[in-house]
Amino acid sequence: MSLLPSATAKQVFDLVRDDLAAVEREFSRQAESEVVVIQDIAEYLLAGGGKRIRPLLLLLAAKALGFQGESRIRMGAVVEMLHTATLVHDDIIDEAKTRRGKASTNTVWGESKCVLAGDWLYMQSFQTALEERNFHVLDLLIGLTQQMVEGELLQIQKLGHLINEEEYFDLIFRKTAMLFKVSMQLGAALSGASDEVEQQLGEYGRNLGLAFQIVDDVLDITGEESTIGKPAASDLREGKATLAVIHALERGTGAEREAIRTVLADRNFSRVKHATILEILKHHGSLEYAMDAARAYAEAARQSIVDLPAANSEAAKALRALQWVPGYVTDRDR
Amino acid sequence: MSLLPSATAKQVFDLVRDDLAAVEREFSRQAESEVVVIQDIAEYLLAGGGKRIRPLLLLLAAKALGFQGESRIRMGAVVEMLHTATLVHDDIIDEAKTRRGKASTNTVWGESKCVLAGDWLYMQSFQTALEERNFHVLDLLIGLTQQMVEGELLQIQKLGHLINEEEYFDLIFRKTAMLFKVSMQLGAALSGASDEVEQQLGEYGRNLGLAFQIVDDVLDITGEESTIGKPAASDLREGKATLAVIHALERGTGAEREAIRTVLADRNFSRVKHATILEILKHHGSLEYAMDAARAYAEAARQSIVDLPAANSEAAKALRALQWVPGYVTDRDR
Repeated sequence: MSLLPSATAKQVFDLVRDDLAAVEREFSRQAESEVVVIQDIAEYLLAGGGKRIRPLLLLLAAKALGFQGESRIRMGAVVEMLHTATLVHDDIIDEAKTRRGKASTNTVWGESKCVLAGDWLYMQSFQTALEERNFHVLDLLIGLTQQMVEGELLQIQKLGHLINEEEYFDLIFRKTAMLFKVSMQLGAALSGASDEVEQQLGEYGRNLGLAFQIVDDVLDITGEESTIGKPAASDLREGKATLAVIHALERGTGAEREAIRTVLADRNFSRVKHATILEILKHHGSLEYAMDAARAYAEAARQSIVDLPAANSEAAKALRALQWVPGYVTDRDR
Repeated sequence: MSLLPSATAKQVFDLVRDDLAAVEREFSRQAESEVVVIQDIAEYLLAGGGKRIRPLLLLLAAKALGFQGESRIRMGAVVEMLHTATLVHDDIIDEAKTRRGKASTNTVWGESKCVLAGDWLYMQSFQTALEERNFHVLDLLIGLTQQMVEGELLQIQKLGHLINEEEYFDLIFRKTAMLFKVSMQLGAALSGASDEVEQQLGEYGRNLGLAFQIVDDVLDITGEESTIGKPAASDLREGKATLAVIHALERGTGAEREAIRTVLADRNFSRVKHATILEILKHHGSLEYAMDAARAYAEAARQSIVDLPAANSEAAKALRALQWVPGYVTDRDR
């Protein structure tokens, strides 16, 4: 375990409550458009909640380095808006019916408007980031977005196919961990931190993002629809093999492998039941294997910043909060 | 008519041949991606041709100001790539079957991949533009893209409805004229021109872009499928009222207005024939009205830069070429 003491949930919440509220207001302001449908879609997504973990990371990174400028609020909203843009396009691609327990935007507004609304959200995040007049900030954001889009394309090509762990980790790095990494790096970049410190914080974000997505993928298999806000086992229904499934595929009997392959190819549970797959995963300890991997990445995140010095007492609080986040990520049920 | 002498087609071609060839190579280089499907889509679009009028404008604007730096080639490819990105998303939205006489990308690769390929092309243009390390260049490009996306959303909201001339001009400004304007402005920005000169060249681009789109819309109504590379009267089939149609709607009899309304609402010619609509437009001189408007904007483009001084003989050739382009735009048949 990490040597740095971890904060409690209440301490973390108290530390960033005002900043996160400011990020919400800023997000609303950025989402304003004279084109009514854009504002409608953006407000719908904003009201839909979400954990706001990306702005949280950016705020904590900045605070850990003693930075208090307004840029942290603006850029906190930018990373959430960028994340939102990817969700809008991903829901079109996955033909998702729900998101966070509500109808997905493509279901409400149709595909055409959502293609454009996603485009608009991308442009608006870049537009806002451009106000920083900081090329490094733009390099981080645009490079990130391109890698995320490539990741989504790679995922489409692999749908319905068996993939190995290496391919899985490449996909979840692009899909999730890279934005976590860049959120931390942006906190550092705004603070004028050294390359080395930015790299350390980025490493924290990368490890945390990998842990986050592995847990998301486990919850997708084990969670109840009412808790996770989308149909159970959506990934399997979309032909996506995630870590626990890959683990079972490598260890299962011929019949078990065939059962998993059938679900991935069919993209439904008509020939093989969801309960059968769960049974296979439990029998091989695959879910526990995935959770162990998530916990290892969470611990790696903590270790990444264990030797960062705190400039002042607020910075020390932020560092302790960053020690708390990985546990929050691995212990959640949605 | 403009006082500045106009070049001949051959003189223009000789002037920019090498630069345009360099832009083609640069576009290919920018479109390289380790994700195979992106490269496939980008190469398909590149091979599909297109008039390359946006890079042409940027190159001529730079040349008219005596600028010969490599940035003009890079940014020439960027404006073409940005244009290409909008086409990929527009074809999804319009459910287009063909583009420039070939199957549209969404038909070949499916919607999902094309949503992401469009995203990638946007990001790649910004990525390349970012290499310029020029905030003004980025302001122009990102502001432009947002306005184009908003324009497309406004157009969707108006599909099947009657619009007035003011709404029509707002739509074609966002859809086409703004990118023409920014292409010219970028040529100026790279050359380090004054705000005033940049504004004059931008005005040329705006006027030329309006002329270009009005002609496109007329050709859509009058052109043969084999010439324009898409089904005749696609706009009416998509519920889009363009200038000639708006003109006829304002002057037609009750029965004529009803015929046009029916086609726009039906989005096909099952109840009212294409020939009937053509007859109405011809009877009211609506096609000639639209072409007169295009020619007026073309002339306004020429006038916008009539007092620009030429720094050297190459610059003078470029200015004469810019006097030639508006005639090329209004006299073309595809």
